[in-house]
Amino acid sequence: MADNNVEKTSVALLGLGAMGAALARAWLAAGHPVTVWNRTPARAAALAAEGARVADSAAEAVAAHTLVVACLLDDASVDEVLTGADLAGRDLVNLTTSTPAQARARAEWARERGAHYLDGGIMAVPPMIGVPEAGGYVFYSGSRELFERHRETLAVPAGTTYVGTDAGFAALHDVALLSAMYGMFAGVTHAFALIRREDIDPASLAPLLADWLVAMAPGIHQTADQLRHGDYTKGVVSRLAMQVAGTPTFLSTAQQQGVSPELLSPYFALMRRRLAEAGGEEGLTGLVDLLVH
Amino acid sequence: MADNNVEKTSVALLGLGAMGAALARAWLAAGHPVTVWNRTPARAAALAAEGARVADSAAEAVAAHTLVVACLLDDASVDEVLTGADLAGRDLVNLTTSTPAQARARAEWARERGAHYLDGGIMAVPPMIGVPEAGGYVFYSGSRELFERHRETLAVPAGTTYVGTDAGFAALHDVALLSAMYGMFAGVTHAFALIRREDIDPASLAPLLADWLVAMAPGIHQTADQLRHGDYTKGVVSRLAMQVAGTPTFLSTAQQQGVSPELLSPYFALMRRRLAEAGGEEGLTGLVDLLVH
Repeated sequence: MADNNVEKTSVALLGLGAMGAALARAWLAAGHPVTVWNRTPARAAALAAEGARVADSAAEAVAAHTLVVACLLDDASVDEVLTGADLAGRDLVNLTTSTPAQARARAEWARERGAHYLDGGIMAVPPMIGVPEAGGYVFYSGSRELFERHRETLAVPAGTTYVGTDAGFAALHDVALLSAMYGMFAGVTHAFALIRREDIDPASLAPLLADWLVAMAPGIHQTADQLRHGDYTKGVVSRLAMQVAGTPTFLSTAQQQGVSPELLSPYFALMRRRLAEAGGEEGLTGLVDLLVH
Repeated sequence: MADNNVEKTSVALLGLGAMGAALARAWLAAGHPVTVWNRTPARAAALAAEGARVADSAAEAVAAHTLVVACLLDDASVDEVLTGADLAGRDLVNLTTSTPAQARARAEWARERGAHYLDGGIMAVPPMIGVPEAGGYVFYSGSRELFERHRETLAVPAGTTYVGTDAGFAALHDVALLSAMYGMFAGVTHAFALIRREDIDPASLAPLLADWLVAMAPGIHQTADQLRHGDYTKGVVSRLAMQVAGTPTFLSTAQQQGVSPELLSPYFALMRRRLAEAGGEEGLTGLVDLLVH
Protein backbone atom coordinates (compact mmCIF):
# COMPACT_ATOMS: atom_id res chain seq x y z
CA MET A 1 0.00 0.00 0.00
CA ALA A 2 1.12 3.54 -0.79
CA ASP A 3 0.73 4.44 2.85
CA ASN A 4 3.64 2.18 3.79
CA ASN A 5 5.97 4.05 1.48
CA VAL A 6 5.36 7.35 3.23
CA GLU A 7 7.51 7.95 6.27
CA LYS A 8 5.33 9.16 9.14
CA THR A 9 6.35 12.45 10.75
CA SER A 10 8.28 12.04 14.00
CA VAL A 11 6.90 13.79 17.07
CA ALA A 12 8.71 15.09 20.15
CA LEU A 13 6.15 15.12 22.95
CA LEU A 14 6.72 16.98 26.19
CA GLY A 15 4.42 16.10 29.07
CA LEU A 16 2.80 12.76 29.83
CA GLY A 17 -0.17 13.61 32.00
CA ALA A 18 -3.39 11.79 31.13
CA MET A 19 -3.78 13.88 27.96
CA GLY A 20 -0.11 13.77 26.89
CA ALA A 21 0.02 9.99 27.33
CA ALA A 22 -3.18 9.60 25.28
CA LEU A 23 -1.66 11.72 22.49
CA ALA A 24 1.56 9.67 22.52
CA ARG A 25 -0.38 6.42 22.29
CA ALA A 26 -2.49 7.71 19.38
CA TRP A 27 0.61 8.67 17.37
CA LEU A 28 2.43 5.43 18.21
CA ALA A 29 -0.62 3.40 17.21
CA ALA A 30 -0.66 5.23 13.86
CA GLY A 31 3.02 4.43 13.23
CA HIS A 32 4.56 7.81 14.03
CA PRO A 33 7.97 7.68 15.74
CA VAL A 34 7.50 9.46 19.08
CA THR A 35 10.17 10.75 21.45
CA VAL A 36 8.72 11.52 24.87
CA TRP A 37 9.89 13.43 27.89
CA ASN A 38 8.18 13.81 31.22
CA ARG A 39 9.28 15.34 34.50
CA THR A 40 8.41 12.09 36.28
CA PRO A 41 10.36 9.41 34.35
CA ALA A 42 8.10 6.53 35.42
CA ARG A 43 5.32 7.72 33.11
CA ALA A 44 7.77 7.77 30.19
CA ALA A 45 8.90 4.24 30.96
CA ALA A 46 5.36 2.96 30.49
CA LEU A 47 5.30 4.49 27.01
CA ALA A 48 8.75 3.12 26.16
CA ALA A 49 7.24 -0.33 26.47
CA GLU A 50 4.72 0.75 23.80
CA GLY A 51 7.44 1.86 21.40
CA ALA A 52 8.27 5.45 22.36
CA ARG A 53 11.84 6.65 22.56
CA VAL A 54 12.49 8.32 25.92
CA ALA A 55 14.60 11.48 26.08
CA ASP A 56 16.58 12.30 29.20
CA SER A 57 15.72 15.97 28.98
CA ALA A 58 13.24 18.24 27.25
CA ALA A 59 16.14 19.79 25.32
CA GLU A 60 17.12 16.33 24.02
CA ALA A 61 13.57 15.64 22.88
CA VAL A 62 13.37 19.02 21.14
CA ALA A 63 16.71 18.34 19.40
CA ALA A 64 15.43 15.01 18.07
CA HIS A 65 12.57 16.16 15.82
CA THR A 66 11.24 19.22 14.01
CA LEU A 67 7.70 18.81 15.31
CA VAL A 68 7.55 19.49 19.05
CA VAL A 69 4.26 19.11 20.91
CA ALA A 70 3.95 20.44 24.45
CA CYS A 71 1.12 19.25 26.69
CA LEU A 72 2.14 20.49 30.11
CA LEU A 73 0.48 21.51 33.36
CA ASP A 74 0.21 25.23 32.65
CA ASP A 75 1.82 28.10 30.79
CA ALA A 76 4.50 28.60 33.45
CA SER A 77 5.56 24.97 32.95
CA VAL A 78 6.09 25.60 29.24
CA ASP A 79 8.55 28.35 30.10
CA GLU A 80 10.33 26.22 32.65
CA VAL A 81 10.52 23.04 30.60
CA LEU A 82 11.72 24.72 27.40
CA THR A 83 14.41 26.88 29.03
CA GLY A 84 17.68 25.60 27.64
CA ALA A 85 16.13 23.88 24.63
CA ASP A 86 17.14 25.13 21.18
CA LEU A 87 13.88 25.99 19.46
CA ALA A 88 15.42 27.49 16.31
CA GLY A 89 13.65 26.10 13.25
CA ARG A 90 11.30 24.00 15.35
CA ASP A 91 7.55 23.67 14.77
CA LEU A 92 6.19 24.15 18.26
CA VAL A 93 2.59 23.05 18.87
CA ASN A 94 1.48 24.07 22.33
CA LEU A 95 -1.51 22.11 23.63
CA THR A 96 -1.03 23.30 27.20
CA THR A 97 -4.16 24.93 28.66
CA SER A 98 -3.67 28.71 28.37
CA THR A 99 -5.60 31.94 28.29
CA PRO A 100 -5.66 33.85 24.97
CA ALA A 101 -3.15 36.39 26.38
CA GLN A 102 -0.81 33.61 27.49
CA ALA A 103 -1.00 32.00 24.06
CA ARG A 104 -0.25 35.30 22.32
CA ALA A 105 2.73 35.97 24.59
CA ARG A 106 3.96 32.41 24.07
CA ALA A 107 3.75 32.85 20.29
CA GLU A 108 5.92 35.96 20.53
CA TRP A 109 8.31 34.14 22.89
CA ALA A 110 8.60 31.28 20.36
CA ARG A 111 9.17 33.71 17.46
CA GLU A 112 12.02 35.34 19.37
CA ARG A 113 13.58 31.88 19.68
CA GLY A 114 13.27 31.20 15.97
CA ALA A 115 10.41 28.70 16.25
CA HIS A 116 7.15 28.51 14.33
CA TYR A 117 4.21 28.46 16.73
CA LEU A 118 0.78 26.89 16.73
CA ASP A 119 -1.46 26.99 19.79
CA GLY A 120 -4.09 24.37 20.49
CA GLY A 121 -7.16 24.02 22.69
CA ILE A 122 -8.30 20.45 23.16
CA MET A 123 -12.06 19.85 23.06
CA ALA A 124 -11.89 16.31 24.38
CA VAL A 125 -11.09 14.29 27.47
CA PRO A 126 -8.25 11.72 27.28
CA PRO A 127 -10.49 8.69 26.59
CA MET A 128 -11.67 10.42 23.38
CA ILE A 129 -8.12 10.79 21.98
CA GLY A 130 -7.38 8.40 19.11
CA VAL A 131 -11.07 7.48 18.92
CA PRO A 132 -12.38 9.44 15.90
CA GLU A 133 -15.98 8.36 16.47
CA ALA A 134 -15.87 10.02 19.92
CA GLY A 135 -16.01 13.36 18.13
CA GLY A 136 -13.23 15.13 20.04
CA TYR A 137 -11.21 17.79 18.26
CA VAL A 138 -8.58 20.45 18.79
CA PHE A 139 -8.84 24.16 18.01
CA TYR A 140 -5.62 25.44 16.43
CA SER A 141 -4.51 29.01 15.85
CA GLY A 142 -1.23 30.74 15.01
CA SER A 143 1.03 29.76 12.11
CA ARG A 144 -1.09 28.56 9.22
CA GLU A 145 2.02 27.20 7.47
CA LEU A 146 2.84 25.03 10.47
CA PHE A 147 -0.76 23.85 10.64
CA GLU A 148 -0.83 22.94 6.93
CA ARG A 149 2.61 21.28 7.11
CA HIS A 150 1.54 18.94 9.94
CA ARG A 151 -2.15 18.75 9.27
CA GLU A 152 -2.22 14.99 8.79
CA THR A 153 -0.08 14.28 11.83
CA LEU A 154 -2.17 16.62 13.98
CA ALA A 155 -5.32 14.89 12.78
CA VAL A 156 -4.21 11.51 14.17
CA PRO A 157 -5.23 11.96 17.84
CA ALA A 158 -8.37 14.06 17.21
CA GLY A 159 -10.13 16.24 14.66
CA THR A 160 -8.60 19.63 13.82
CA THR A 161 -10.29 23.02 13.53
CA TYR A 162 -8.07 25.95 12.52
CA VAL A 163 -9.53 29.24 13.76
CA GLY A 164 -7.05 31.93 12.69
CA THR A 165 -3.54 33.33 12.67
CA ASP A 166 -4.07 35.06 16.04
CA ALA A 167 -2.37 32.61 18.42
CA GLY A 168 -4.91 33.48 21.13
CA PHE A 169 -7.95 32.37 19.15
CA ALA A 170 -7.63 28.64 19.85
CA ALA A 171 -7.66 29.29 23.62
CA LEU A 172 -10.47 31.80 23.19
CA HIS A 173 -12.64 29.33 21.27
CA ASP A 174 -11.81 26.60 23.79
CA VAL A 175 -12.76 28.78 26.75
CA ALA A 176 -15.89 30.07 25.00
CA LEU A 177 -17.24 26.57 24.34
CA LEU A 178 -16.38 25.26 27.79
CA SER A 179 -17.87 28.36 29.43
CA ALA A 180 -21.12 27.76 27.55
CA MET A 181 -21.00 24.14 28.64
CA TYR A 182 -20.65 25.12 32.31
CA GLY A 183 -23.66 27.39 31.88
CA MET A 184 -25.64 24.45 30.53
CA PHE A 185 -24.42 22.28 33.41
CA ALA A 186 -25.50 24.99 35.87
CA GLY A 187 -29.00 24.96 34.37
CA VAL A 188 -29.13 21.17 34.52
CA THR A 189 -27.94 21.25 38.15
CA HIS A 190 -30.82 23.58 39.02
CA ALA A 191 -33.30 21.35 37.16
CA PHE A 192 -32.25 18.19 39.01
CA ALA A 193 -32.30 20.11 42.32
CA LEU A 194 -35.95 21.07 41.65
CA ILE A 195 -37.05 17.42 41.60
CA ARG A 196 -34.62 16.18 44.30
CA ARG A 197 -37.26 15.80 47.02
CA GLU A 198 -40.08 14.69 44.74
CA ASP A 199 -41.06 11.19 43.76
CA ILE A 200 -39.61 11.69 40.27
CA ASP A 201 -36.85 9.44 38.96
CA PRO A 202 -33.90 11.58 37.77
CA ALA A 203 -33.49 9.06 34.95
CA SER A 204 -37.00 9.90 33.69
CA LEU A 205 -36.24 13.64 33.72
CA ALA A 206 -32.86 13.19 31.99
CA PRO A 207 -34.05 12.38 28.44
CA LEU A 208 -36.66 15.17 28.61
CA LEU A 209 -33.94 17.62 29.68
CA ALA A 210 -31.42 16.44 27.10
CA ASP A 211 -33.95 16.51 24.25
CA TRP A 212 -35.16 19.96 25.25
CA LEU A 213 -31.66 21.44 25.40
CA VAL A 214 -30.76 19.87 22.05
CA ALA A 215 -33.97 21.32 20.58
CA MET A 216 -33.17 24.79 21.96
CA ALA A 217 -29.48 24.83 20.92
CA PRO A 218 -30.19 25.99 17.33
CA GLY A 219 -31.43 29.28 18.83
CA ILE A 220 -27.70 30.08 19.08
CA HIS A 221 -27.70 30.75 15.34
CA GLN A 222 -30.36 33.43 15.70
CA THR A 223 -28.34 35.09 18.48
CA ALA A 224 -25.26 35.10 16.23
CA ASP A 225 -27.25 36.53 13.36
CA GLN A 226 -28.62 39.33 15.54
CA LEU A 227 -25.16 40.14 16.94
CA ARG A 228 -23.75 40.26 13.42
CA HIS A 229 -26.39 42.63 12.11
CA GLY A 230 -26.94 44.65 15.27
CA ASP A 231 -30.71 44.21 15.11
CA TYR A 232 -31.76 42.46 18.29
CA THR A 233 -35.46 42.40 17.45
CA LYS A 234 -35.13 40.46 14.19
CA GLY A 235 -37.17 37.25 14.22
CA VAL A 236 -37.93 37.47 17.95
CA VAL A 237 -40.73 35.13 19.06
CA SER A 238 -40.34 35.24 22.84
CA ARG A 239 -40.07 38.92 23.70
CA LEU A 240 -37.86 39.95 26.62
CA ALA A 241 -40.83 41.65 28.33
CA MET A 242 -42.74 38.35 28.28
CA GLN A 243 -39.75 36.36 29.49
CA VAL A 244 -39.08 38.75 32.36
CA ALA A 245 -42.77 38.47 33.29
CA GLY A 246 -42.24 34.71 33.54
CA THR A 247 -39.26 34.81 35.91
CA PRO A 248 -41.31 35.03 39.16
CA THR A 249 -42.72 31.58 38.34
CA PHE A 250 -39.16 30.18 38.14
CA LEU A 251 -38.08 31.83 41.37
CA SER A 252 -41.26 30.86 43.26
CA THR A 253 -40.93 27.29 42.07
CA ALA A 254 -37.32 27.17 43.28
CA GLN A 255 -38.44 28.53 46.65
CA GLN A 256 -41.30 26.01 46.89
CA GLN A 257 -38.90 23.17 46.13
CA GLY A 258 -36.32 24.40 48.67
CA VAL A 259 -33.81 25.17 45.93
CA SER A 260 -31.40 28.10 46.02
CA PRO A 261 -31.83 30.27 42.90
CA GLU A 262 -28.14 31.28 42.95
CA LEU A 263 -27.31 29.69 39.59
CA LEU A 264 -30.22 31.29 37.74
CA SER A 265 -30.75 34.65 39.44
CA PRO A 266 -27.74 36.44 37.85
CA TYR A 267 -29.18 35.71 34.40
CA PHE A 268 -32.65 36.87 35.43
CA ALA A 269 -31.12 40.05 36.90
CA LEU A 270 -29.41 40.69 33.57
CA MET A 271 -32.75 40.18 31.76
CA ARG A 272 -34.38 42.80 33.98
CA ARG A 273 -31.49 45.25 33.41
CA ARG A 274 -31.73 44.88 29.64
CA LEU A 275 -35.51 45.28 29.72
CA ALA A 276 -35.14 48.51 31.68
CA GLU A 277 -32.48 49.84 29.30
CA ALA A 278 -33.65 48.65 25.89
CA GLY A 279 -37.35 47.86 26.20
CA GLY A 280 -39.18 44.60 25.72
CA GLU A 281 -39.24 44.12 21.93
CA GLU A 282 -35.84 42.41 21.83
CA GLY A 283 -35.21 38.79 22.73
CA LEU A 284 -32.21 37.83 24.88
CA THR A 285 -29.31 38.81 22.59
CA GLY A 286 -28.84 42.24 24.17
CA LEU A 287 -27.65 40.55 27.37
CA VAL A 288 -24.34 39.79 25.62
CA ASP A 289 -23.51 43.50 25.48
CA LEU A 290 -24.31 43.99 29.16
CA LEU A 291 -21.50 41.57 30.06
CA VAL A 292 -18.82 43.40 28.07
CA HIS A 293 -17.16 46.38 29.77
CA MET B 1 -63.30 7.62 5.74
CA ALA B 2 -63.91 6.36 9.27
CA ASP B 3 -62.64 9.65 10.65
CA ASN B 4 -65.62 11.51 9.21
CA ASN B 5 -68.04 9.31 11.14
CA VAL B 6 -66.51 10.24 14.48
CA GLU B 7 -67.79 13.45 15.98
CA LYS B 8 -64.82 15.53 17.15
CA THR B 9 -64.84 16.56 20.80
CA SER B 10 -66.03 20.11 21.38
CA VAL B 11 -63.72 22.44 23.30
CA ALA B 12 -64.54 25.46 25.45
CA LEU B 13 -61.44 27.66 25.39
CA LEU B 14 -60.92 30.50 27.88
CA GLY B 15 -58.23 33.01 27.01
CA LEU B 16 -57.12 34.15 23.57
CA GLY B 17 -53.65 35.48 24.10
CA ALA B 18 -51.07 34.43 21.51
CA MET B 19 -51.04 30.88 22.90
CA GLY B 20 -54.79 30.56 23.40
CA ALA B 21 -55.50 31.80 19.87
CA ALA B 22 -52.97 29.32 18.45
CA LEU B 23 -54.68 26.48 20.35
CA ALA B 24 -58.10 27.56 19.09
CA ARG B 25 -56.90 27.65 15.49
CA ALA B 26 -55.29 24.21 15.78
CA TRP B 27 -58.54 22.66 17.04
CA LEU B 28 -60.67 24.48 14.48
CA ALA B 29 -58.35 23.38 11.68
CA ALA B 30 -58.72 19.77 12.86
CA GLY B 31 -62.53 20.02 12.79
CA HIS B 32 -63.23 20.37 16.51
CA PRO B 33 -66.13 22.66 17.44
CA VAL B 34 -64.63 25.40 19.61
CA THR B 35 -66.39 27.90 21.83
CA VAL B 36 -64.11 30.75 22.83
CA TRP B 37 -64.23 33.44 25.43
CA ASN B 38 -61.78 36.27 25.97
CA ARG B 39 -61.82 39.30 28.24
CA THR B 40 -61.18 41.53 25.22
CA PRO B 41 -63.98 40.62 22.73
CA ALA B 42 -62.05 41.83 19.66
CA ARG B 43 -59.70 38.84 19.82
CA ALA B 44 -62.70 36.49 19.91
CA ALA B 45 -64.26 38.18 16.89
CA ALA B 46 -61.19 37.32 14.80
CA LEU B 47 -61.62 33.65 15.68
CA ALA B 48 -65.35 33.77 14.98
CA ALA B 49 -64.42 34.51 11.37
CA GLU B 50 -62.45 31.26 11.42
CA GLY B 51 -65.38 29.20 12.69
CA ALA B 52 -65.31 29.55 16.47
CA ARG B 53 -68.45 30.11 18.45
CA VAL B 54 -68.05 33.13 20.74
CA ALA B 55 -69.48 33.01 24.27
CA ASP B 56 -70.52 36.21 26.02
CA SER B 57 -69.10 35.05 29.32
CA ALA B 58 -66.71 32.46 30.65
CA ALA B 59 -69.63 30.81 32.46
CA GLU B 60 -71.48 30.47 29.14
CA ALA B 61 -68.45 28.85 27.49
CA VAL B 62 -68.06 26.43 30.41
CA ALA B 63 -71.75 25.55 30.18
CA ALA B 64 -71.43 24.75 26.48
CA HIS B 65 -68.99 21.79 26.59
CA THR B 66 -67.59 19.16 28.93
CA LEU B 67 -63.98 19.83 27.97
CA VAL B 68 -62.89 23.24 29.24
CA VAL B 69 -59.39 24.51 28.47
CA ALA B 70 -58.04 27.57 30.30
CA CYS B 71 -55.05 29.43 28.91
CA LEU B 72 -55.03 32.65 30.92
CA LEU B 73 -52.52 35.24 32.09
CA ASP B 74 -51.76 33.71 35.47
CA ASP B 75 -53.21 31.63 38.27
CA ALA B 76 -55.10 34.59 39.78
CA SER B 77 -56.86 35.07 36.44
CA VAL B 78 -58.10 31.47 36.53
CA ASP B 79 -59.78 32.16 39.84
CA GLU B 80 -61.29 35.41 38.64
CA VAL B 81 -62.49 34.15 35.26
CA LEU B 82 -64.07 30.96 36.59
CA THR B 83 -65.89 32.57 39.51
CA GLY B 84 -69.58 32.10 38.75
CA ALA B 85 -69.04 29.28 36.26
CA ASP B 86 -70.57 25.91 37.10
CA LEU B 87 -67.69 23.44 36.90
CA ALA B 88 -69.62 20.41 38.16
CA GLY B 89 -68.85 17.42 35.93
CA ARG B 90 -66.50 19.44 33.75
CA ASP B 91 -63.09 18.25 32.53
CA LEU B 92 -60.93 21.26 33.28
CA VAL B 93 -57.54 21.40 31.55
CA ASN B 94 -55.52 24.31 32.88
CA LEU B 95 -52.70 25.40 30.56
CA THR B 96 -52.14 28.67 32.43
CA THR B 97 -48.52 29.13 33.56
CA SER B 98 -48.38 28.15 37.24
CA THR B 99 -45.97 27.03 39.90
CA PRO B 100 -46.33 23.43 41.16
CA ALA B 101 -47.95 24.70 44.39
CA GLN B 102 -50.45 26.81 42.43
CA ALA B 103 -51.31 23.81 40.24
CA ARG B 104 -51.85 21.59 43.28
CA ALA B 105 -54.07 24.18 44.95
CA ARG B 106 -55.99 24.67 41.71
CA ALA B 107 -56.57 20.90 41.45
CA GLU B 108 -58.04 20.89 44.96
CA TRP B 109 -60.14 23.97 44.12
CA ALA B 110 -61.47 22.21 41.01
CA ARG B 111 -62.23 19.03 42.97
CA GLU B 112 -64.27 21.05 45.49
CA ARG B 113 -66.32 22.37 42.56
CA GLY B 114 -66.98 18.88 41.20
CA ALA B 115 -64.59 19.15 38.23
CA HIS B 116 -61.94 16.74 37.02
CA TYR B 117 -58.60 18.50 36.74
CA LEU B 118 -55.58 18.19 34.49
CA ASP B 119 -52.74 20.69 34.61
CA GLY B 120 -50.53 21.44 31.63
CA GLY B 121 -47.15 23.04 31.02
CA ILE B 122 -46.60 24.05 27.39
CA MET B 123 -43.11 23.38 25.98
CA ALA B 124 -43.62 25.43 22.85
CA VAL B 125 -44.07 28.96 21.61
CA PRO B 126 -47.29 29.87 19.74
CA PRO B 127 -45.84 29.42 16.20
CA MET B 128 -45.13 25.75 17.07
CA ILE B 129 -48.77 25.00 17.95
CA GLY B 130 -50.55 22.88 15.34
CA VAL B 131 -47.21 22.21 13.61
CA PRO B 132 -46.28 18.66 14.69
CA GLU B 133 -42.89 18.78 12.97
CA ALA B 134 -41.92 21.75 15.19
CA GLY B 135 -41.60 19.28 18.06
CA GLY B 136 -43.53 21.26 20.68
CA TYR B 137 -45.37 19.36 23.37
CA VAL B 138 -47.31 19.79 26.59
CA PHE B 139 -46.56 18.21 29.97
CA TYR B 140 -49.75 17.01 31.64
CA SER B 141 -50.32 15.92 35.21
CA GLY B 142 -53.35 15.35 37.44
CA SER B 143 -56.36 13.20 36.51
CA ARG B 144 -55.17 10.29 34.39
CA GLU B 145 -58.79 9.49 33.47
CA LEU B 146 -59.30 12.99 32.08
CA PHE B 147 -56.01 12.73 30.17
CA GLU B 148 -56.94 9.35 28.65
CA ARG B 149 -60.49 10.49 27.85
CA HIS B 150 -59.28 13.52 25.85
CA ARG B 151 -55.90 12.22 24.75
CA GLU B 152 -56.63 12.55 21.02
CA THR B 153 -58.11 16.01 21.34
CA LEU B 154 -55.22 17.20 23.49
CA ALA B 155 -52.76 15.83 20.94
CA VAL B 156 -54.12 18.08 18.16
CA PRO B 157 -52.24 21.31 19.01
CA ALA B 158 -48.99 19.68 20.24
CA GLY B 159 -47.50 16.44 21.51
CA THR B 160 -48.55 15.20 24.95
CA THR B 161 -46.37 13.90 27.80
CA TYR B 162 -48.21 12.72 30.93
CA VAL B 163 -45.94 12.94 33.97
CA GLY B 164 -48.06 11.81 36.91
CA THR B 165 -51.20 12.15 39.02
CA ASP B 166 -49.63 14.90 41.15
CA ALA B 167 -51.16 18.01 39.56
CA GLY B 168 -47.96 19.95 40.31
CA PHE B 169 -45.69 17.72 38.23
CA ALA B 170 -46.50 19.26 34.84
CA ALA B 171 -45.52 22.72 36.10
CA LEU B 172 -42.47 21.25 37.85
CA HIS B 173 -41.25 19.56 34.67
CA ASP B 174 -41.98 22.70 32.65
CA VAL B 175 -40.01 24.91 35.05
CA ALA B 176 -37.16 22.38 35.32
CA LEU B 177 -36.65 22.24 31.54
CA LEU B 178 -36.95 25.99 31.06
CA SER B 179 -34.59 26.64 33.99
CA ALA B 180 -32.00 24.36 32.39
CA MET B 181 -32.51 26.21 29.11
CA TYR B 182 -31.87 29.58 30.76
CA GLY B 183 -28.67 28.14 32.21
CA MET B 184 -27.59 27.11 28.72
CA PHE B 185 -28.53 30.56 27.38
CA ALA B 186 -26.46 32.16 30.17
CA GLY B 187 -23.43 30.10 29.13
CA VAL B 188 -23.97 31.02 25.49
CA THR B 189 -24.31 34.69 26.44
CA HIS B 190 -20.93 34.53 28.19
CA ALA B 191 -19.37 32.76 25.19
CA PHE B 192 -20.54 35.41 22.70
CA ALA B 193 -19.42 38.17 25.09
CA LEU B 194 -15.89 36.67 25.09
CA ILE B 195 -15.53 37.21 21.33
CA ARG B 196 -17.48 40.49 21.16
CA ARG B 197 -14.43 42.72 20.67
CA GLU B 198 -12.44 40.25 18.58
CA ASP B 199 -12.35 39.87 14.82
CA ILE B 200 -14.40 36.68 15.04
CA ASP B 201 -17.74 36.38 13.25
CA PRO B 202 -20.43 35.32 15.76
CA ALA B 203 -21.90 33.21 12.95
CA SER B 204 -18.67 31.18 12.78
CA LEU B 205 -18.72 30.56 16.55
CA ALA B 206 -22.42 29.62 16.56
CA PRO B 207 -22.20 26.16 14.91
CA LEU B 208 -19.17 25.26 17.06
CA LEU B 209 -21.10 26.26 20.18
CA ALA B 210 -24.29 24.48 19.16
CA ASP B 211 -22.47 21.27 18.19
CA TRP B 212 -20.46 21.27 21.41
CA LEU B 213 -23.52 21.73 23.62
CA VAL B 214 -25.41 19.02 21.75
CA ALA B 215 -22.37 16.72 22.19
CA MET B 216 -22.21 17.44 25.92
CA ALA B 217 -25.98 17.11 26.59
CA PRO B 218 -25.88 13.29 26.94
CA GLY B 219 -23.76 13.81 30.10
CA ILE B 220 -27.14 14.56 31.70
CA HIS B 221 -27.84 10.82 31.71
CA GLN B 222 -24.73 10.13 33.78
CA THR B 223 -25.76 12.81 36.27
CA ALA B 224 -29.21 11.20 36.56
CA ASP B 225 -27.66 7.77 37.03
CA GLN B 226 -25.37 9.04 39.78
CA LEU B 227 -28.23 10.84 41.55
CA ARG B 228 -30.34 7.70 41.38
CA HIS B 229 -27.68 5.44 42.84
CA GLY B 230 -26.08 7.95 45.21
CA ASP B 231 -22.57 7.19 43.93
CA TYR B 232 -21.19 10.44 42.56
CA THR B 233 -17.82 8.98 41.53
CA LYS B 234 -19.24 6.33 39.19
CA GLY B 235 -17.83 6.66 35.67
CA VAL B 236 -16.24 10.06 36.35
CA VAL B 237 -13.72 11.11 33.68
CA SER B 238 -13.26 14.81 34.52
CA ARG B 239 -12.65 14.89 38.26
CA LEU B 240 -13.94 17.86 40.25
CA ALA B 241 -10.40 18.62 41.52
CA MET B 242 -9.18 18.92 37.92
CA GLN B 243 -12.15 21.04 36.86
CA VAL B 244 -11.72 23.42 39.79
CA ALA B 245 -8.04 23.71 38.88
CA GLY B 246 -9.16 24.84 35.42
CA THR B 247 -11.48 27.62 36.57
CA PRO B 248 -8.77 30.34 36.88
CA THR B 249 -8.22 30.03 33.12
CA PHE B 250 -11.91 30.78 32.54
CA LEU B 251 -11.96 33.72 34.92
CA SER B 252 -8.67 35.18 33.61
CA THR B 253 -9.90 34.85 30.04
CA ALA B 254 -13.10 36.68 30.93
CA GLN B 255 -11.06 39.44 32.56
CA GLN B 256 -8.72 39.69 29.55
CA GLN B 257 -11.70 40.00 27.23
CA GLY B 258 -13.38 42.64 29.41
CA VAL B 259 -16.26 40.29 30.24
CA SER B 260 -18.02 40.19 33.59
CA PRO B 261 -17.91 36.65 35.04
CA GLU B 262 -21.23 37.16 36.84
CA LEU B 263 -23.06 34.43 34.92
CA LEU B 264 -20.39 31.76 35.51
CA SER B 265 -18.90 32.59 38.90
CA PRO B 266 -21.81 31.23 41.01
CA TYR B 267 -21.32 27.80 39.40
CA PHE B 268 -17.56 27.93 39.94
CA ALA B 269 -18.13 28.94 43.56
CA LEU B 270 -20.39 25.90 44.00
CA MET B 271 -17.67 23.68 42.45
CA ARG B 272 -15.16 24.96 45.01
CA ARG B 273 -17.61 24.40 47.88
CA ARG B 274 -18.26 20.83 46.82
CA LEU B 275 -14.55 20.14 46.40
CA ALA B 276 -13.90 21.41 49.92
CA GLU B 277 -16.73 19.32 51.37
CA ALA B 278 -16.58 16.09 49.39
CA GLY B 279 -13.09 15.89 47.88
CA GLY B 280 -12.07 15.77 44.25
CA GLU B 281 -12.90 12.24 43.12
CA GLU B 282 -16.49 13.12 42.22
CA GLY B 283 -17.55 14.86 39.04
CA LEU B 284 -20.12 17.66 39.15
CA THR B 285 -23.23 15.78 40.33
CA GLY B 286 -22.71 16.67 44.01
CA LEU B 287 -23.46 20.31 43.19
CA VAL B 288 -27.15 19.38 42.89
CA ASP B 289 -27.32 18.61 46.60
CA LEU B 290 -25.64 21.90 47.52
CA LEU B 291 -28.58 23.78 45.98
CA VAL B 292 -31.26 21.96 48.00
CA HIS B 293 -31.95 23.25 51.50
